[in-house]
Amino acid sequence: MLKNDLLLKAARGEQTERIPIWLMRQAGRILPEYRAVRSSVHGFKELVKNPELICEVTLQPVDILGVDAAIIFSDILVIPEAMGLNYEMIESKGPFFPKTIQNAQDISVLTTDVVPNLQYVFESIRLTKAALNNRVPLIGFAGAPWTIFSYMIEGKGSKTFSEAKKMLYVNPVLSHQLLDKITSATIAYLKEQIRNGADIVQVFDSWAGVLSKAQYIEFALPYMQKITEAITEVPVILFAKDAHYIVKEFSQTNTSVIGLDWTIDPKQARMEAPNKTLQGNLDPCVLYADKETIKAETHKMLQAFGPQNYICNLGHGVYPDVDFEKAKYFIEVVQSYR
Amino acid sequence: MLKNDLLLKAARGEQTERIPIWLMRQAGRILPEYRAVRSSVHGFKELVKNPELICEVTLQPVDILGVDAAIIFSDILVIPEAMGLNYEMIESKGPFFPKTIQNAQDISVLTTDVVPNLQYVFESIRLTKAALNNRVPLIGFAGAPWTIFSYMIEGKGSKTFSEAKKMLYVNPVLSHQLLDKITSATIAYLKEQIRNGADIVQVFDSWAGVLSKAQYIEFALPYMQKITEAITEVPVILFAKDAHYIVKEFSQTNTSVIGLDWTIDPKQARMEAPNKTLQGNLDPCVLYADKETIKAETHKMLQAFGPQNYICNLGHGVYPDVDFEKAKYFIEVVQSYR
Repeated sequence: MLKNDLLLKAARGEQTERIPIWLMRQAGRILPEYRAVRSSVHGFKELVKNPELICEVTLQPVDILGVDAAIIFSDILVIPEAMGLNYEMIESKGPFFPKTIQNAQDISVLTTDVVPNLQYVFESIRLTKAALNNRVPLIGFAGAPWTIFSYMIEGKGSKTFSEAKKMLYVNPVLSHQLLDKITSATIAYLKEQIRNGADIVQVFDSWAGVLSKAQYIEFALPYMQKITEAITEVPVILFAKDAHYIVKEFSQTNTSVIGLDWTIDPKQARMEAPNKTLQGNLDPCVLYADKETIKAETHKMLQAFGPQNYICNLGHGVYPDVDFEKAKYFIEVVQSYR
Repeated sequence: MLKNDLLLKAARGEQTERIPIWLMRQAGRILPEYRAVRSSVHGFKELVKNPELICEVTLQPVDILGVDAAIIFSDILVIPEAMGLNYEMIESKGPFFPKTIQNAQDISVLTTDVVPNLQYVFESIRLTKAALNNRVPLIGFAGAPWTIFSYMIEGKGSKTFSEAKKMLYVNPVLSHQLLDKITSATIAYLKEQIRNGADIVQVFDSWAGVLSKAQYIEFALPYMQKITEAITEVPVILFAKDAHYIVKEFSQTNTSVIGLDWTIDPKQARMEAPNKTLQGNLDPCVLYADKETIKAETHKMLQAFGPQNYICNLGHGVYPDVDFEKAKYFIEVVQSYR
């Protein structure tokens, strides 16, 4: 039995005595303790594949920041790799795929039987779950099919992801084939995370915002829907960054929670998704401000969302150069709010 | 008298016999003729400061693509430079400011008397206006105060512009001082463009989308408003990319036209700004598709906007690797639509 199950209660739409909070990228460069672990290994991928270290860095924000949930430290790109498309993480530049997906042949060689290749994640989850000792829930996660597709086509980060979008317009049939394969792999991956201890899972659609609403509905939404229909064991959180047009459509899926970025008005989102728990959405840059401003901006947000059916978070991952004392203060403000 | 004044009529809310069209970044790398001119000079800034070449590349899309307006070829960053903050344009990387704005002293040395420093732009406009021989209107432009501010603080492009946003939260008073100075310079610049022949002006808020609605309303909207109130000589187009939340607020300014990116639903925008001419908003990636798809997507958009109070465009600048024949086809589809 979890000692603190506020996050799960809020996700299931049950009443909570206070608002739960966690931060996207809470385990990461913001914490000196993380940077110490990170500098003890050669590269980011070496860290991601080391269950003992993953357990350590996943627990750090629970101990140091006092968040109401842990999120397993990993990378959304473990899925393309497990499907057969290798990537490198280039320091201060980001991911790079030496080979990208160009045609049907490239797709046909990808496997959806990813579970055997992702044992390091599941072992990390088991270790972390044991070390957490039921203090708070453990969040599992995966990238959304569209975002994973973007990287597999584009081969790296991009402001426009125009190569990936070109594929949607030029070869919609092939695009759906790849998206479908990614979705199958993702569902298997999430289910195995849950079997090994994840109490809730979040699907990150980081590059949703480059799509028009019509394209999101054609190429992204059906796969998000498929995931929410397949994952019945635990609550699901869908987070599509910059896809301001999709809140209403998400409310019609089986998702339990909808994550919002800071460009979304809380009251507007409540109107568009009255039946769902909402998560978010403070501008990460508020944490650069003084404590007075952090408190005022946070209270404004909490009032706008209201106390129930709500999980507090930033509108995106915490920026790495934020003073962790400021992040901690934000968490305290939320946890002491009544 | 202009032979083709469709754009101005649409901007003024007058009836037009057909929908006018131009493309953001129509003068640029998409055209082989542009690339020939570009490779004849040392760097991008050398081109921007050469009125004869500016005239030549500004006319190219009118001759080759048959658009209903020319837009003077220039760069939004000529304003920080004219205010005293120099920048370099680094090939395939983008702009870089060796020195950025950090404090009140840095702001105090900036000048708002930019007109003497921008004579090369005004000469370019005069030459172009003469060479156009009244075939189509000439569009002048400037960066929006928030976008110029972002570059002056951040010093380069950024995914998050977290340094610039940090300044807003940490030092709002200083931020307003700088925004105010940029606005004064921008108004003087636009007025002088008009005096030298610009028939209409567009204000580009390229980095609007990193701001929350509350921050846009505090730090960006008042300056956009100030510009629309100061420019009474010709119609103004406001374009705030990714600021989906601001259409209604823009409709309450003195602007004539609101530009939209491709994430905005045309019918929704018509409801939010029933009193304004709208411009946009085809996904630039549609131009990667075959002609059939281009035609179908374009017709869908034209039907959604309706034939009046509308200027056709992409939702952002045309991507440099688009086949110019496809761009030309898009323009033909719009111009033959009844």
